Amino acid sequence: MFFEGSEKKAEITIDATQLSLLTDISDDFWPTLVNHSNAKILSSISNDQCKAFLLSESSLFVWHNRLLILTCGETQLVKAVEYFIQTLGQNVIKQLTYQRKNEYFANAQPSCFGSDIKLINQYLSGKAYRFGEMDSHHNYVFHLDNRHEATEVSYELLAYQISTSASAHLTQANLSASDIRDFLCISQILPDFTLDDFVFSPYGYSLNAIKNKQYLTIHVTPQAESSYISFASNIDLMTLAPTLLEILTPKSFDLMTFNEHEFEDKLKHHIPAQYVCKSKVEQQLNNGDLVSFTNFILPQSTYVAPVELNIAGDNHAL
Amino acid sequence: MFFEGSEKKAEITIDATQLSLLTDISDDFWPTLVNHSNAKILSSISNDQCKAFLLSESSLFVWHNRLLILTCGETQLVKAVEYFIQTLGQNVIKQLTYQRKNEYFANAQPSCFGSDIKLINQYLSGKAYRFGEMDSHHNYVFHLDNRHEATEVSYELLAYQISTSASAHLTQANLSASDIRDFLCISQILPDFTLDDFVFSPYGYSLNAIKNKQYLTIHVTPQAESSYISFASNIDLMTLAPTLLEILTPKSFDLMTFNEHEFEDKLKHHIPAQYVCKSKVEQQLNNGDLVSFTNFILPQSTYVAPVELNIAGDNHAL
Repeated sequence: MFFEGSEKKAEITIDATQLSLLTDISDDFWPTLVNHSNAKILSSISNDQCKAFLLSESSLFVWHNRLLILTCGETQLVKAVEYFIQTLGQNVIKQLTYQRKNEYFANAQPSCFGSDIKLINQYLSGKAYRFGEMDSHHNYVFHLDNRHEATEVSYELLAYQISTSASAHLTQANLSASDIRDFLCISQILPDFTLDDFVFSPYGYSLNAIKNKQYLTIHVTPQAESSYISFASNIDLMTLAPTLLEILTPKSFDLMTFNEHEFEDKLKHHIPAQYVCKSKVEQQLNNGDLVSFTNFILPQSTYVAPVELNIAGDNHAL
Repeated sequence: MFFEGSEKKAEITIDATQLSLLTDISDDFWPTLVNHSNAKILSSISNDQCKAFLLSESSLFVWHNRLLILTCGETQLVKAVEYFIQTLGQNVIKQLTYQRKNEYFANAQPSCFGSDIKLINQYLSGKAYRFGEMDSHHNYVFHLDNRHEATEVSYELLAYQISTSASAHLTQANLSASDIRDFLCISQILPDFTLDDFVFSPYGYSLNAIKNKQYLTIHVTPQAESSYISFASNIDLMTLAPTLLEILTPKSFDLMTFNEHEFEDKLKHHIPAQYVCKSKVEQQLNNGDLVSFTNFILPQSTYVAPVELNIAGDNHAL
């Protein structure tokens, strides 16, 4: 069974002198916003600085002056972004970043990055870039063409083609959230975080974790033929990379950071030596954000068999 | 300007005791067949064993008992295959192989591999495989589920992200076919071949070359942001790889062969040491063909800038 794990991501910073996204917004706003992307809210956790919603397809985090939403599968995140802009108005928005990765099955998506940012650009004008190689992993980034205080550091670690044993473990029947947390060493990685997680059927797992303003979200698509595990956080995932890569042993992974000024140093210190760098891209955007992207691969020396496809199958994994 | 260089490819072997594709087919059959894929014939060359058509999007080769057609861009090759089956009948077909690579912009294609082979499978039943990694370069292969004499050796060398200097050279204004032939060392690679080539506007180049039953076809999409150069031939491209890779210095390339039983030995001898193997797949298909696929990359140590996209642009390169 194929599932498009790769996420679209939007981050919106607002003028907190006008309103707080935590206290000045009606309760039905977030479910309605999420529904616009064609996802729905499963559960939520909160503290006085952050509210985190676990979605049917990924996650939504809300702070007083900021929201971060990721949606995967065949959702259309740009429609949720449009709803936000239309409902709260352009004037309250100080910065907006909209990202899309290359997808496994772009042909099954309801829209492409080009049409998404044309829609956003009708409300708020910006610039767009591709970080990474067109014929390999890449990440499209749109941002508003105005400066903001680029102090928020964030990290994404995206693991592709996890080891056969990790995939087998994570696709076991009747696996509990607690089993998966143990496998991913969550208590070691995230001591004292409030957790909210969900095991999908027949497999798949999502976790939101918050502590004060800190967040980490993990989304696991474990099936062998399209395995993809994403970590997004404002805690330092580069320092955690050795632990996460040892657990998952992906054949390929991406690291993408905003405003991590020690990116190269951390690569040198934390990426295991067996990985080879395939792509390295960096730029300080017009809005002030420093964006770094890299893709690493594990060299292969032995032959594998091809994957046989089910011609009669009605999924687009063919 | 973006162009989808990656090709769909079909190879059909017929029962030559029933008819010859060179002598028993009306002149208007091939233009009609090509038109069904939404491409058109630009020119042709021939000898007594082979006829080669240069197409608006790639190439068609015809032998007495076999045809090979490649089409790129947003053509729909499966429609030409369906026309062949409907016009000449299932019974004359001994073997049919239909291939599709991962595309740069799958969302712009009129169909996907899954729907293509479902269409073919209505006429002739087969099996389908994916050679290569789903999140990276891969090649889908469909073939009829019956044995044939798997003696035809063929090679594809697919070069992605050619060097800045090769891209700059090949996108010069007013470049002649002769300039491009010199750049690609065609007279050295293909002595005594009959050549037919075409320079597209504003750039892009196609070449067909034949000699007795031998063929080689080259398709050049040189623009820096989506560069892709494909070589397909029944002459040994693995031995030629050092020459071609030195000319183009691609950041990534695929080698795919049918019935090359010395694949691994030739990799060891001919692939320059700076390339790292990212993927290796091999299988003897049910029909008898031995299929080998590999992807190599050039490790990167320096940062590059991201590519800025034109939001107002109406191409799907966004």
